[in-house]
Amino acid sequence: MLGGMQDWALRVTHLIDHAAREHGRQEIVTRWGDGSVTRTDWAGVARDARKLAQAFVAMGLEPGDRVATLAMNHDRHFTAWYGAIGMGGVIHTLNIRLFDEQLIYIVNHAEDRVLLYDAQFQPVVDRLRPHLTSVEHYISFDQPGGYDALIAARDGDYVWHMGDERDPCMLCYTSGTTGHPKGVLYEHRSTLLHAMAEVSPSVFDLSPETVMLPIVPMFHAASWGLPFAGAAAGVKFVFSVTNDAPVLHRLMVDEGVTHSAGVPTVWLAMFQHLDATGEELGKLRLVTIGGSAAPRAMVERLMKMGVRVGHAWGMTETSPIGTMGAPPAGWDELSFEKQVDVVCKQGRVPFGVELRVVDEDGGVLPRDGASSGRLQIRGPWVIKRYFKADEDATEDGDWFDTGDVALIHPDGTMQITDRAKDVIKSGGEWISSVELENAAVGCKGVAEAAAIGVPHPKWDERPILLIVRKADAQVCPDALRSELSAKVAKWWLPDEILFVDSLPHTGTGKLLKTALREEYRDYRLPI
Amino acid sequence: MLGGMQDWALRVTHLIDHAAREHGRQEIVTRWGDGSVTRTDWAGVARDARKLAQAFVAMGLEPGDRVATLAMNHDRHFTAWYGAIGMGGVIHTLNIRLFDEQLIYIVNHAEDRVLLYDAQFQPVVDRLRPHLTSVEHYISFDQPGGYDALIAARDGDYVWHMGDERDPCMLCYTSGTTGHPKGVLYEHRSTLLHAMAEVSPSVFDLSPETVMLPIVPMFHAASWGLPFAGAAAGVKFVFSVTNDAPVLHRLMVDEGVTHSAGVPTVWLAMFQHLDATGEELGKLRLVTIGGSAAPRAMVERLMKMGVRVGHAWGMTETSPIGTMGAPPAGWDELSFEKQVDVVCKQGRVPFGVELRVVDEDGGVLPRDGASSGRLQIRGPWVIKRYFKADEDATEDGDWFDTGDVALIHPDGTMQITDRAKDVIKSGGEWISSVELENAAVGCKGVAEAAAIGVPHPKWDERPILLIVRKADAQVCPDALRSELSAKVAKWWLPDEILFVDSLPHTGTGKLLKTALREEYRDYRLPI
Repeated sequence: MLGGMQDWALRVTHLIDHAAREHGRQEIVTRWGDGSVTRTDWAGVARDARKLAQAFVAMGLEPGDRVATLAMNHDRHFTAWYGAIGMGGVIHTLNIRLFDEQLIYIVNHAEDRVLLYDAQFQPVVDRLRPHLTSVEHYISFDQPGGYDALIAARDGDYVWHMGDERDPCMLCYTSGTTGHPKGVLYEHRSTLLHAMAEVSPSVFDLSPETVMLPIVPMFHAASWGLPFAGAAAGVKFVFSVTNDAPVLHRLMVDEGVTHSAGVPTVWLAMFQHLDATGEELGKLRLVTIGGSAAPRAMVERLMKMGVRVGHAWGMTETSPIGTMGAPPAGWDELSFEKQVDVVCKQGRVPFGVELRVVDEDGGVLPRDGASSGRLQIRGPWVIKRYFKADEDATEDGDWFDTGDVALIHPDGTMQITDRAKDVIKSGGEWISSVELENAAVGCKGVAEAAAIGVPHPKWDERPILLIVRKADAQVCPDALRSELSAKVAKWWLPDEILFVDSLPHTGTGKLLKTALREEYRDYRLPI
Repeated sequence: MLGGMQDWALRVTHLIDHAAREHGRQEIVTRWGDGSVTRTDWAGVARDARKLAQAFVAMGLEPGDRVATLAMNHDRHFTAWYGAIGMGGVIHTLNIRLFDEQLIYIVNHAEDRVLLYDAQFQPVVDRLRPHLTSVEHYISFDQPGGYDALIAARDGDYVWHMGDERDPCMLCYTSGTTGHPKGVLYEHRSTLLHAMAEVSPSVFDLSPETVMLPIVPMFHAASWGLPFAGAAAGVKFVFSVTNDAPVLHRLMVDEGVTHSAGVPTVWLAMFQHLDATGEELGKLRLVTIGGSAAPRAMVERLMKMGVRVGHAWGMTETSPIGTMGAPPAGWDELSFEKQVDVVCKQGRVPFGVELRVVDEDGGVLPRDGASSGRLQIRGPWVIKRYFKADEDATEDGDWFDTGDVALIHPDGTMQITDRAKDVIKSGGEWISSVELENAAVGCKGVAEAAAIGVPHPKWDERPILLIVRKADAQVCPDALRSELSAKVAKWWLPDEILFVDSLPHTGTGKLLKTALREEYRDYRLPI
C-alpha cells in the first residue's frame, strides 16, 4: 500500500528555486581582490545560473558531465555551481593549493570537460593545459570573453534538467597526504538532505536573519555545504576573494555578518588584527570552526566576546558535516569553564548520521567517554564508493572508517583524540599527538606545535615536540616541560622539545605530519 | 551515472533511533488528569515502542495495518505512534471531539484493526463498539490488563520493520464541516522530510535546549508534526492530558518549558489566568499559534512579554506545515508595530513547499500583496490523493487547492484573507469574514465574533456580526460600529450586530460557520 503524498524528487535545483522565489531580494555580496564590492541577489544568481546552463548545453555538455572550477569564493563561482548542477552536470571544485601533478591527475581522472578559473590562476592553467586530456573549454571568470560573455549571450529561458535524485551533482577530491587523490561523488539527494540538516539550530542555525561569511573556500569540501544550506534558509551571503584578517573584518562590520565559518588559523589572524586595532566583531554571533581542532584559548576568547562557537568535525567523504558542537540541554546552567569544555569537544551528530568507535579488531567500543578507537560513520550523506573505484569504501553495514581516533561520551558527544596514523604508540599505549599539541599551544610563548613519535628501543615510540615560538617570545624547553606537566600525564611528556622556525602544512592548512615523520625518521633520542 | 553516497531509506524509525541513541536521557514528561506527573525519556520511549511493536506482531498485525488511538497527549500515546509505525503499521489518530457517527464512519473506512484508548473515553468506545466492523483488539492505555500488560509481556528484542520509504506511516482524517471525513495517508518519506524542515530556526526552532509543551492535541493534524520533529532535534517533551490554563501554566514553570504550540483560544485562557494570578510565563520564548488566525492583541501581548510568536498556517492535507511566521531579514530594525504586522500575517513557506494564488478561472495571480485568490500548495508533504479515493486531490502540476483565500506579498509572506466558502460576496466584491472578525475581537468588551453573509436584495450578500461579550462587559451596537469604522472599509461595516451567548465550534475548535449560515439563512436585514 502506497501513501497518499506527492512525488517530489530531492534535486538540488529545488534549493535555488526556493531561494530565488522566497528570498529573491536577499543579497549575495562579493568583495573582490582589488577591493571592489559587487552585489547581486538570489534572484540574480538563479537568473545567471540558467543562462550559464544554456551556455553549457550549447557547448554540447550532457547530464553527468563534469565542470571544473579553479577559483576563490565569489558570486560567479557560486552561480557556476547552480548553473552546472542545473543543466544536470557535476560541479567539480579544484583545490588551488594542490601541486600541478595532483591537479593534472585529478582533472584527467574526473574527465572534466570545462574548466572555469579566476584570472589570478591563469599561470596555473597555462602550465596544466598541455597535460589535460579531457578539457574542451577554458573559461575565465573575470577576463574579457569569459564568463560574462557566456552569460550575456543567453536569455535565461531555460528549464532545469530533471533526473533521478540519486544522480551526481558534485565531485570533490580528498587532499590526502599519500597516494592519489580520491573523488567523492555527491548526489542530489545526499546534498539536499545534508543541506536541510545544516539549517538546524544545532548545526549552522541558518535563517533569513543570517548574514553568512564563509571563509572556508568553495574549493574545500563544498565550502562545508554552506552554498546549499544557505539557499534552503534564504541567508544573505558575503564572499571574499582574499582572506586577510583586515579585509574580512571590514566586511563583517560593513555587511552586518552574523555567521562565519573557517579553520582555526583564520581566527588566530583575526585576533591579531583585533589586538592591533582594538576593533570588535560587530554583529557576529556564531562562528563555526572545523578542519582541525580549535585550541581552547581560541574558543574562550570568542565566547568571551559573546560569540557562540560551533566546533565541527567532518571530511570530504561526509559532505562534510559529521558532528557539530551546539548547546546541549541545560547549557545555561553550566559554568563558563564547563561550557568551554563542551565546545572543545567535537559535538554531536545531526539527525541522519551515526557514529561508532571500534577497537583494532573491529569490536564496537562503549560510549563511555573513555574508550578510544577508530571512528566510523554512516548515513545518507556519507560516501559509499569513491568515484571510479572498483569496490566500496565502507565495511559491514555501510560503516566508513574515518581514519580518526576518537571517543564518544554517554551523551553522544564525540571527541577526536587523534588521526589514526598520527597516534604515538608508546609501550603498547596510545599518546594522542593532537592533545599534546593542544596542550603545548596553550603554553606561554608557543605559536604552533607538532608532536610526532620517533623510534625508541624500549618503548617502541616516544613523543618529541616541535615548537614554533611566538614572535619575540622567550621560551626554554625546561619551562615548557614544566608547564606541560600540569596538563598531560607524566608519561606523555615529550622526550625532546625542539624549536623550529616553521612547520610544514598540507594544501588545506593542516600540519603535514607525514613530512615531519619522514624528516625525523632517524632521529636518535638522547637516552 | 550514479553518485557515490550511501543508501538510507527515509523511514520514521530513524527518528526514534536517533533520539534514543543521541538524546536518550532527555525527558518525556506527562502530567495526567489526576495531577500526577510521570517521567520517561527517549530511551524509554524507544524501548517500550519496540515492546509494543512485538505485541502488535503477536496479535497478527501486518505491515500497512492501521492502529487507531482515541487519546489525549501523554507518553503512552506518544510511544504507541512509534510502536505502530516501527512494526510497519499505520498510526491512526481519532479526533475525540467528533460525533459518534463520524467516528464510526472513520474507523470502518480506515479498517482499523486495533483501537487504543484512554479510560476516560470508555463510554465512547462502548457506544461505538457494536458498530465497528474491523477492530479486533480494544486496548486501554490506563486500565489494568491494557497497555501496561502488553508492554510487560515483551522483552523489546525487536528490529524495526524495514520497507519502502513511500510506505504509509500515519492516517489522519480531516474534520470537515460537510460531507464524510477524508483520510490523509502520510508516508515515511513525507513525514521525515516534514520533520527535518520543522527543526529549522524559521519553523519550530528545535534543539536539545528546547523544552516543548505541545498543547495542540496528538489527535489533531499529527500534533503539527511535533512528535516527529522533536525526535530529530532531541527535545525534552512535556505532555498534559488536560488543557486548563492553571495546569498548563504550572507545568511551564515547573518543567522550564521554552516552546509551546496551540490554537488561539489556549492563549486567551492563559491570559485570563495570568491576569487573575499575576504570574509570568517562565522560560517560554517561542509560541506557535495555528489552527485559526491569532488576533493582533494576542500577538502583541505575547511579544511584549518577550515571547516570539510563530504564526503558522497549514492543514491536515499538508502534514500540516504550509507556512510559518519567523523573523525576516532586517527584523531588528523594525519598530514593534511593524514586527507585529509581520507576525499577524501567516509567514513564509519552509524549504520544500510552494504556494500560489489563483483567480476564479485558475489564472495565477501576482505576488503583489494585493491580489487575493484561492490558495494552492504543492510539495513533498502535501497530499496527492485521499485514502481510498478514486482520483487525485490535486490539479495540474500537483497543485492542491486549500479552500483558503489568500494573498502573497512580494517577499513571499502569505496572508490568509478568508476561507473560500466563508467569503462574503457583496456587490461583486469580496468581504473577508476573518478580517471583520479580527477587527471586532480587537474592540472593547468583545470576547468572540463571527461574521457571516446573509441574503440582500441589492448587494446579493451583506455581512452581519454575531458577538459574544466578555463577562460583565457593556457593549452596544453603535459603540462597536463606531470602533469598527476606524478599522475596516466603510462598505465592510456589518448591516446588523447581534449579541449572542455563545457561538458554535467544530470538533477542533474552529467557528462552525456552516451552522451559523444555516441558522441565519432566512435572516431578514432591516432595509
